Amino acid sequence: MNRQECDDLLARTGFGRLACARDNQPYIVPIYFAHQPGRLYGFATVGQKVEWMRSNPRVCIQVDDVSGPDQWASVIAVGRYAELPDTQEYTQARSWAQSLLKRRASWWQVGYAASQLRSQPQAHVPILYCIHIEEISGLRASPGEKIIETWNLKS
Amino acid sequence: MNRQECDDLLARTGFGRLACARDNQPYIVPIYFAHQPGRLYGFATVGQKVEWMRSNPRVCIQVDDVSGPDQWASVIAVGRYAELPDTQEYTQARSWAQSLLKRRASWWQVGYAASQLRSQPQAHVPILYCIHIEEISGLRASPGEKIIETWNLKS
Repeated sequence: MNRQECDDLLARTGFGRLACARDNQPYIVPIYFAHQPGRLYGFATVGQKVEWMRSNPRVCIQVDDVSGPDQWASVIAVGRYAELPDTQEYTQARSWAQSLLKRRASWWQVGYAASQLRSQPQAHVPILYCIHIEEISGLRASPGEKIIETWNLKS
Repeated sequence: MNRQECDDLLARTGFGRLACARDNQPYIVPIYFAHQPGRLYGFATVGQKVEWMRSNPRVCIQVDDVSGPDQWASVIAVGRYAELPDTQEYTQARSWAQSLLKRRASWWQVGYAASQLRSQPQAHVPILYCIHIEEISGLRASPGEKIIETWNLKS
């Protein structure tokens, strides 16, 4: 899959899994996100995922679209986590991220559900974040085709 | 979700995402697996995932079952990777793992597809592995229910 096809899959799905790591222990959570080329925007509340990404911003996102056992596409993006804090400097970026996210009905679901379980005082503070994509690759299978393409690109 | 409900979801789906990490960089891939309480069995060929798990066996597996935006369940398991090498010592374990995996029509797909892209001499050698689950937790949402349960257990 070339870069455009990888981007198309991210834009079309808006849902995937994010992995972060601390002390070389990986951790995965499902996320909803909004996409623009080179970036993903998401919403979370303070918890293990956010704490780990604050201490180590290296993340990996995997998104797939499976129509059947011989027809699927999977994109893996490696990037860096950065928060969009509620300060004047980030007003425009936050507003842009929110407008993109609000096009997706369920954008708040996973972050909100997780926050219901937490007793920390900061558990309900919404956090807008951006993943800066550094590398992206895709793998695809189609019926009758033996060629499966992949393409690694620095963005 | 209690331990039994987490196990039921792993047994029912047999498909999820596995994250591994090297130098604190996480990496995710989709995997098919067979489940028995406390363990997951999978198939792979030598590539980034296997190389990383050989250098750092700590992994995280995430599995979900999404019926709609207000009805879903997600299980996260933390565990350790171990290979079942093709030696006499592991004959019985391999045979057991293979019999479990073969009940799933697509168990070989992801590992095989990835191997087609690789030019290393070992790329086509099938590897049977086991993930020893050390901790498991589940999160669930149901329509009309405000209670979302989670439960962390050492296995």
